Order: sequence, then C-alpha cells, then structure tokens
Amino acid sequence: MQNNERYERGLRKLAEVNGEGVEHVLEWLDSIAPDFRRYVIEYAFGDIFSRPALDLRTRELITVAALTAIGTAAAQLKFHLRAARNVGCTREEIVETIMQMSVYAGFPAALNGLFAAKEVFMEP
Amino acid sequence: MQNNERYERGLRKLAEVNGEGVEHVLEWLDSIAPDFRRYVIEYAFGDIFSRPALDLRTRELITVAALTAIGTAAAQLKFHLRAARNVGCTREEIVETIMQMSVYAGFPAALNGLFAAKEVFMEP
Amino acid sequence: MQNNERYERGLRKLAEVNGEGVEHVLEWLDSIAPDFRRYVIEYAFGDIFSRPALDLRTRELITVAALTAIGTAAAQLKFHLRAARNVGCTREEIVETIMQMSVYAGFPAALNGLFAAKEVFMEP
Amino acid sequence: MQNNERYERGLRKLAEVNGEGVEHVLEWLDSIAPDFRRYVIEYAFGDIFSRPALDLRTRELITVAALTAIGTAAAQLKFHLRAARNVGCTREEIVETIMQMSVYAGFPAALNGLFAAKEVFMEP
Amino acid sequence: MQNNERYERGLRKLAEVNGEGVEHVLEWLDSIAPDFRRYVIEYAFGDIFSRPALDLRTRELITVAALTAIGTAAAQLKFHLRAARNVGCTREEIVETIMQMSVYAGFPAALNGLFAAKEVFMEP
Amino acid sequence: MQNNERYERGLRKLAEVNGEGVEHVLEWLDSIAPDFRRYVIEYAFGDIFSRPALDLRTRELITVAALTAIGTAAAQLKFHLRAARNVGCTREEIVETIMQMSVYAGFPAALNGLFAAKEVFMEP
Repeated sequence: MQNNERYERGLRKLAEVNGEGVEHVLEWLDSIAPDFRRYVIEYAFGDIFSRPALDLRTRELITVAALTAIGTAAAQLKFHLRAARNVGCTREEIVETIMQMSVYAGFPAALNGLFAAKEVFMEP
Repeated sequence: MQNNERYERGLRKLAEVNGEGVEHVLEWLDSIAPDFRRYVIEYAFGDIFSRPALDLRTRELITVAALTAIGTAAAQLKFHLRAARNVGCTREEIVETIMQMSVYAGFPAALNGLFAAKEVFMEP
Repeated sequence: MQNNERYERGLRKLAEVNGEGVEHVLEWLDSIAPDFRRYVIEYAFGDIFSRPALDLRTRELITVAALTAIGTAAAQLKFHLRAARNVGCTREEIVETIMQMSVYAGFPAALNGLFAAKEVFMEP
Repeated sequence: MQNNERYERGLRKLAEVNGEGVEHVLEWLDSIAPDFRRYVIEYAFGDIFSRPALDLRTRELITVAALTAIGTAAAQLKFHLRAARNVGCTREEIVETIMQMSVYAGFPAALNGLFAAKEVFMEP
Repeated sequence: MQNNERYERGLRKLAEVNGEGVEHVLEWLDSIAPDFRRYVIEYAFGDIFSRPALDLRTRELITVAALTAIGTAAAQLKFHLRAARNVGCTREEIVETIMQMSVYAGFPAALNGLFAAKEVFMEP
Repeated sequence: MQNNERYERGLRKLAEVNGEGVEHVLEWLDSIAPDFRRYVIEYAFGDIFSRPALDLRTRELITVAALTAIGTAAAQLKFHLRAARNVGCTREEIVETIMQMSVYAGFPAALNGLFAAKEVFMEP
C-alpha cells in the first residue's frame, strides 16, 4: 500500500510530540471515521510535522499560537500544550506565546489560552 | 507623563522589527484616532514585544501563524511578513509556518498566507 | 395577524426535520426572549427551509458543513446532525461531509464535528 | 400578500438609517437573489431594527462593534458606519466603539475598523 | 513605578462594572501569568474603559454584542452580562442587543448569547 | 515515488471540477511553495474529493456553504462557485445554498457570498 511510508512516518512523529500513550490518541476516531484517523496521521504528522525546515519546538509554539487565536479547538489546544512541553518548550515560552495572542485575537482568546495552559501544567 | 517609558520602548521595538520608515507606519491613525496609535505602540510593542522571554524571530513566526489562521488581517499579515524577514527569519521558515496553518485553519487560509508571502518576498 | 402563515409553515418544517418532541425544542427561549423563538421558526424554518429549491437532505448537509466549519455552535450542530438523520441522510454522508471540512476549516474543526457526530449516532 | 407590513416597515426603517438613495441599496441583489433582498428588509430592518427596546444610535453602535470584531464584512461595516452617522452618533462615539474592539477581537480588527471609519468620514 | 496610575484607574473601573468581589476576578491568573492580570487591568480597564467618550452602559452593550458575535468567549460574555446589569442596562436592552446579533453573526450565535443571558439572569 | 497515485488521482479530480485550464490553477504556488501545490492536489482532491461516498455536486455545495459561512476565502469561494457550475449544480441551487448561510453565519456572510456568485455567473 503506497501510503504506508507516510503513515509510519506520521506515527513516529506523533509519538515524538506526544509522550504518553500514542495508542489511545485518536483511537476514538476508529468507530466513527477510521479513514480520518489515517489522514490526521499521514497529513498533519507524516507530511507537515515531519518536514525539516522548522524544529518541533517552533512547530508546537506556532500551533499553540494559532489554536489560541482561533479559539474553537479547546481539546486540540490542550493536546499541543502537552506536546509543546514534551518537545522541550518551557512553561515561560508557552505562556509568552499565549499572552502575545491578546494583541492579534483579543484578550478573551489569550485568557482562554492561559486557562487551558494552567490546566495542562497542573496535570501530574 | 507616566507612559513615556512604555511609548519610547515600544517605538524602539517597532523600529527593530520594521526596517523601513517607522515614521510612516501607523501615521494614518493620527487623523482618526491618535490615542490608538499610542496604544498600539505602548501595548503591542512596548509591553508585549519587549518582553525578554521570546526572541523576536519566534515572536514574528507566531504572529505570522496567528494572522494566517485568523484570515481577517491581510495588511497586518504583510507587515509581519516583512518584520519576520527584518528580524532574521528565512523565507523557508516563513513559508513552513504558513503551510502548517493548513492543518489548523484549513487550506484556503494557508493559500492566502502564501499568496501574501509571495507578494512581500517580491518587494524590492 | 399577518405572520401566522410563516409561523405555521415554520412549525411544520421544524417538525419535519426534528422527529422527537418539537414542543420542547426552543421552549427554553420563552422565558428569556419569546419573540426570538418566533423569529427562528418564522425565518429559519418558515422562510428559508421551506423554499423548494433544495431538498431537506441537501439543506441539512450544508448546515452540518457550515456549523462544523464555524466551530462555535456545538448545540446547533448536534441538533442538525439529528435532523440530517431524520430527513434521510446516511451516517456515511454525514461523516463524509464533516471530513471534507478539514480542507476548508482545518483538522480540529473536522475532529470536533466527528466527535459531535459520534455522540449523536450513539443516542438511542 | 401577508408580508407587506413587515416589508414596508423595513423599508421605512432602512430609509431612516440610510440617508442617501434607499433605491440603490441592495438593488444589485435583484439580479441574483431578489427574495434575499426582501428577507434583508423584512427581517433585519422590519423585524429587528424596528423593535422599540433600543434606540437607533445604540443599534448602530452595537452593529459597528460586531462587524469590526467579526472582520469579514467590510462593505456592511461601511454601510453601518454611514448609518451610525445618519442616526446621530458622533465621530468620537464611533471611533471609541471601534477602539474598544481591540480588547475583544485584537488590534488588527480595531485597526481595520478605524481604517474603514476614516474612509467613510472622508466621504463628501 | 510608572504604571501605578493606569493600574489603579483600571482597578477602580473594574470594581465599577463588577459588583461582587473584584479580588477574586482574574486572581487565578496570578499562578500562571501574573503580568497578564496586570495588562488586562491596565489596558482593558485603565486605558479603554476609563475613556470618557462612551458611558459604561454603552461600553457594556457593545462588548456583549461583540462577544456574542465572536462566539468563542463564553466566560467573558457572562462576566460582561453581569457587568451590563451592574452598570444599569436593563434585561430588555441586553436581550435586544443579543437578538440583533442574529442578523450579523447568525442565529446560533444569538441563541448561545441568549442562553448565557438566561443563566446570568437566573443567578441570585 | 509512493505518492504518484494520490497526486495523479487528485489531478484528474481537479480537472473534473475545474473545466478551464487546470494547468494554470495553483501554478503561482510553484514559485513560493511547490510542495504545498502537491499537498492541495494530493489531500484535497486526491484523498477527500475522490472518495465515493458523496457525489461531486454535493461536495461542491457543502464547500460553497462552508466558504460562505467562514467569509475569509473569497478567491477559493469563487473557484468553487465555478466548480459547482462545472459539475452540474444549477444557479438556483447555488444561490439557495448561499442564502441559507444567513441563518448560520449572518446576513453579511450571505450577502458577500451572493455578490461572489453574481460575479462568477456573469463570467463569459
């Protein structure tokens, strides 16, 4: 199957950003849209996140910035807040990224981002 | 006046990210809302961009990410695409940041971001 | 009263897309903004949904698409996921519609739409 | 025809907020979606704007606020900037409303709103 | 410290719009981003809300309008629904403001705003 | 190269929805982000649009709905308005789809969609 390589590369990248339990991430998708689980891994992680031009720390910070600014993806923001920590971003860098979003998306967006960060940072 | 320090710091930071002609940036604001010109310089550049916890390259990349994802700030995106170049981001890093937004905000958002980048990169 | 006809037509259309208990739908509006309940029924269902140029299956799929893409209307998305089933859309068509939104509004929007669909499909 | 009353009331309200040439407003809709012209007049102006609970000055300011914050309706924002002036809002109140949106929707949204206001205020 | 004046002015304004327990508002920010608590008070309340050109009733109504239209700031919308009541807006004015958002941001946005208003109005 | 199949399938699907000049579509991407041109063709057209569960007419209508509702992708909306015509959607179906967005994304979004449709329908 011609996509094996992208899928395998995506799975490895996903494991790299997500420390705990790759198996359980996205598995709820299997019962509703198994192909979409594959697309997420292939495109987001196998194609985009596997490109060499940006390091993973930068990739996670720009993702945290975008999801904070958009404001409609609370679960995905928390996933990437954990991922940012996993790939080596400091809490200070993450908080700073979210605070900067007040300029571009308003204070409520930044407040909601900080609230999500606080929840994630308090996780054991 | 107590805000002089924030304003002066913001003006210096604005000059740092914007190579050509600080004087003309935002000056159209004077005839409609002069106080808002001051707020932009004081808050965005004097408070946020002047904080030490993120370097300017990262600050510009997360801004490019957020403005690409939001999709409603074409002029400000182009300003920060120029600023990203001014503070040392490579074209490749900028393009990579915009491409990643396809995952979080859809392909049209990324296409519009790339189109803006192409225009800015073609400027003399 | 001249709007009776629009209201009655809207109520019939609402009953057509919403199998279970029209009476309880929107009734919480009565205590806060009774006129708005009337506007929803008159405009959304009496005017728009009652027009003959699109069949109800198509109307529900474009609504599911739009609400998934917008990402700020979880309750209304679930209402229309149920409505889509009621008017004859298959689960596969609904899932397919939501998955396509990954292209136009990003993967988080599609993931949230699929999650809502899973919840609705699991309802007895 | 049962909607005559709403349509006529909407047309009068539209004339009230729009000083110059009601005839030409929305008339381009006739060649593409004549019914939608009717819906705009009936619902937006005949139903909502004709309600007594808010005066027209407040209605225009909250509309300017919302359209500035949303950022995707440049033409409609300019229409309502003119309307705000027509119903008696001062330039200062309008500018103040737009500036406040920097808090809730970010500085680019406010800047774009101010830019639109400047264009409208410069109209003869 | 040069910002004391803005901070103090912001704190007084915050107390003016928020009847119950200023101390607890925003205090959760201290453990994650104490500087951001300061920015909110200084910029949103010390700079913007303290300007004389709009009365607080109008400021709260345009905020309710914007947050209803944006649809991504449920907690902040409820804060400002309470604030609107505190500064003298009637329930009818608030409901009317939210209903008007159906025209500019769609019926789901207005429905969610009304739902938030109902929750706030039912608070003791 | 393992992606040839997806790319070729995407190119054929793109030709199917886009009657005039596939060669020129997206070619401006080559000078700024050639890989992204490939991703658009592979993912949007090779993966998603090539799935059998929805016919192309439905795929184009849900895309027109989503892009009208989002409001930040004018160029892509016009592309898909043309595509909708190419795959057999009637003008009436397209107009109807856009009008329905007034309910879910507000009247300005629908007006802008109708304006785009008028431009496209007037093309020779």
